[in-house]
Amino acid sequence: MTPRRIEPIAPRGFADHLPQDQAERQALVDVVRRIYEAHGFVPLGTPAVERLESLTGSGGDEANASIFRVETPDGDEFGLRYDLTLPTARVVAANQQDLPRPFRRWQFGTVWRLDKPGPGRFREFTQLDADIVGTTSAVADAQVVAAARDVLEAIVPTRGDVPRYAIRISDRRLLDALIAKAGIDPARSGDILRVVDKLDRLGAEKVRLELTAGYRDESGAPIEGLGLADAAVDVLAEFLAIPRDGRRPVIDRLSGFFAGHDAGLRAVEVIAGLAALLDALGVSEAQAAFDPAIARGLAYYTGPVFEFALLEAPSYGSVGSGGRYDDLVGRFSGQAWPGVGVSIGIDRLLVALQSIGAAPAARAAPDVLVTTMDVARLADYAAMADELRAAGLRVELYAGTALGFAKQMKHADRCGAPVTIIAGEDEFAKGVVTVKRMLEPAFESDASREEWLAQRLGQRVVPRKGLVEAVRSSLEGAP
Amino acid sequence: MTPRRIEPIAPRGFADHLPQDQAERQALVDVVRRIYEAHGFVPLGTPAVERLESLTGSGGDEANASIFRVETPDGDEFGLRYDLTLPTARVVAANQQDLPRPFRRWQFGTVWRLDKPGPGRFREFTQLDADIVGTTSAVADAQVVAAARDVLEAIVPTRGDVPRYAIRISDRRLLDALIAKAGIDPARSGDILRVVDKLDRLGAEKVRLELTAGYRDESGAPIEGLGLADAAVDVLAEFLAIPRDGRRPVIDRLSGFFAGHDAGLRAVEVIAGLAALLDALGVSEAQAAFDPAIARGLAYYTGPVFEFALLEAPSYGSVGSGGRYDDLVGRFSGQAWPGVGVSIGIDRLLVALQSIGAAPAARAAPDVLVTTMDVARLADYAAMADELRAAGLRVELYAGTALGFAKQMKHADRCGAPVTIIAGEDEFAKGVVTVKRMLEPAFESDASREEWLAQRLGQRVVPRKGLVEAVRSSLEGAP
Repeated sequence: MTPRRIEPIAPRGFADHLPQDQAERQALVDVVRRIYEAHGFVPLGTPAVERLESLTGSGGDEANASIFRVETPDGDEFGLRYDLTLPTARVVAANQQDLPRPFRRWQFGTVWRLDKPGPGRFREFTQLDADIVGTTSAVADAQVVAAARDVLEAIVPTRGDVPRYAIRISDRRLLDALIAKAGIDPARSGDILRVVDKLDRLGAEKVRLELTAGYRDESGAPIEGLGLADAAVDVLAEFLAIPRDGRRPVIDRLSGFFAGHDAGLRAVEVIAGLAALLDALGVSEAQAAFDPAIARGLAYYTGPVFEFALLEAPSYGSVGSGGRYDDLVGRFSGQAWPGVGVSIGIDRLLVALQSIGAAPAARAAPDVLVTTMDVARLADYAAMADELRAAGLRVELYAGTALGFAKQMKHADRCGAPVTIIAGEDEFAKGVVTVKRMLEPAFESDASREEWLAQRLGQRVVPRKGLVEAVRSSLEGAP
Repeated sequence: MTPRRIEPIAPRGFADHLPQDQAERQALVDVVRRIYEAHGFVPLGTPAVERLESLTGSGGDEANASIFRVETPDGDEFGLRYDLTLPTARVVAANQQDLPRPFRRWQFGTVWRLDKPGPGRFREFTQLDADIVGTTSAVADAQVVAAARDVLEAIVPTRGDVPRYAIRISDRRLLDALIAKAGIDPARSGDILRVVDKLDRLGAEKVRLELTAGYRDESGAPIEGLGLADAAVDVLAEFLAIPRDGRRPVIDRLSGFFAGHDAGLRAVEVIAGLAALLDALGVSEAQAAFDPAIARGLAYYTGPVFEFALLEAPSYGSVGSGGRYDDLVGRFSGQAWPGVGVSIGIDRLLVALQSIGAAPAARAAPDVLVTTMDVARLADYAAMADELRAAGLRVELYAGTALGFAKQMKHADRCGAPVTIIAGEDEFAKGVVTVKRMLEPAFESDASREEWLAQRLGQRVVPRKGLVEAVRSSLEGAP
């Protein structure tokens, strides 16, 4: 009875991360973690699974519909978390008495969203978040933006004067005031902001049509309109047309736009305060601009919202975002611990960086392969490997079944280590080892070992006791 | 309409990891990762979710019953992974053509098991695995044991001569031969090995009863026996009574035990070969012993199996285990890529280490808190924080709403940073800052600032430009 062969595929919407990709992901995570810790955020861990009751009702209907449910035999209703903010709010609520206030935490974790899978559309995401919870101070808002700026500077350092990223900031209250000024029912603001959020992607004309009568897209499919009156859309359009030419000018224009409108002017005052704090924290206008049209999807935001993108990879959209959520902890504890945070989508950030050749330098492959040409000498090879490891190098000791030189050299080419150590009878007799740089063309298996050794550059015979030093110098300039 | 307050609890069987715990977990993960990479393992990432078809049928019935099912609207049958070995086998099968052979990968990830939750019994586990796939060589088996040894030495370094951990090794084929020699139906070996595996916990007498007629435990509950004949149990008992007094002596005794029994002698030859390789890799008898009774639960093991425990924390049982699985990749690809690996259970290892005061040194709290006594001076405080960060320190810039000295000092006590920076009008006027070590008793809020400053030790007023140096020296000896 032979069992049926199972297709070795990942579930639809899920991706494997092969070594080179995974090494770059880890290097990226390491960088972000270092910056978050430098900014005084402390680590927190929460389960992948949350009670359904904790998950639902906070991220808006869209988030609720995208929760993966997890079955249990005992009837508990569980789901996979769709972000790291909500679980943190729960943990903060449960531990309010014992946490410093404000509480600053960073968290690295996987989140899941039951979206329709497709090419490049995934259901599993790695996020790196930093949040400051338990304070209404706008200093916290500005600090979160400054931390995001430092992460971006660490990943794509500014060359010359112009940053290679754009942080764009708005405030939910500006948008609420806009809806009120336009005379639109606040209950419809969610739908409207979702359309407004498409401005960058669709352009002003299509956004206007979607807000009013609708239109047909390129394929002829009807896009339903929201049926707003032209007068209301004129107000929205005037707002959306405000030039984003620096934080101060935007504030001035918004003051004009909301003249005589109290809620609007209060919202403008809030972002004017934020502008002053960003100045104080050294976040320049070029690094973080005001863009009143930024809405961000999650329903739990209550104040400033922001997002950021890589300017050289605009087609990837925003690679991170955040904002203030003042009511999330209170859902659990009944006591407000207002918070603000940033979430970086590692997966999208990495593909965006890879697309512009700016992924963090990382080589998955080890530094050195120690071949085992003479199995009886395993103890000697192991001693070499141990010495190299003690010197901080990543060392593969050959563990395959191939005994011959040609086959082990083929593995040396394949495994990706920039340096290979070779020692056979000759070398042991003379007390030497061969240290070979693997940057040359591949060994051709019909060559004899002697021919090959004679031809190759970058290969040195060194005294056994000079092994570590020789490997170190061979590694210089290695990819 | 006030929404109902949601209880801020984690799902049953799941745990939150508060900052100090999470910092120690991360430090532990960092150590293991460093050792795995030093041994030439390359990183791999696989999804949390696998197709149910991929998960079932490989880990034995026990593993199948413990799979968390994940619901999808499109009828796909998915489950949460219960280990990292099976997903790796799938990825290897899918990428066989492109991977070096042998392929050495390490993986860090969460796994889930639908066990009955209880105090200290969880359903979510963090594992750190290292595997060598695509080789039958026993050198790979020995290398995996050596890597585990190096991890343990990095975590609980041997003091004097006796290791603080025990690695215990056996081989599935020894146990198969034992079952055959005892005249037991091989189909029953799973049940029998599960009972034999309890030897350490229950003792020889109860294990014998459970193998034969059964018994009643302390509570009077009946424990069903397996109904083996006494003659068969005598053979098992003789095997289990073999003293574990060093690898060579155990091999000699096993040779005697299996005299005239071909399969048994072949299995003994295999572990004799492994013993020679462990010697060659410098894995001492004290570090890794043969213990023929080790069985390990997972059904996919086919050769050597091993487990390890901390000798000072025996009640936590094994904190890691591994073995050889020769058929797992073939289930997906039809082509054998035999593998061997080790899996470290980070959660249990950490609580075991914490119980003996040997958790990796890690402080969640930042190094320095910069207070903001004069909000108008935010730019100056931010500049201090930036300077300290540039010097590699982890710095919290106060982001709360408390303006007064007393409240900010209360936060300084609470946040756990060993050093606090204080600068108010006086300091700015004189071009100095106050650098305070936070090891003294807490500030009492009815003291005036001046009284308190006068009383405290470990507090220095230093020139503003000497800030970084002063903080560095204050941090010396900090917890």
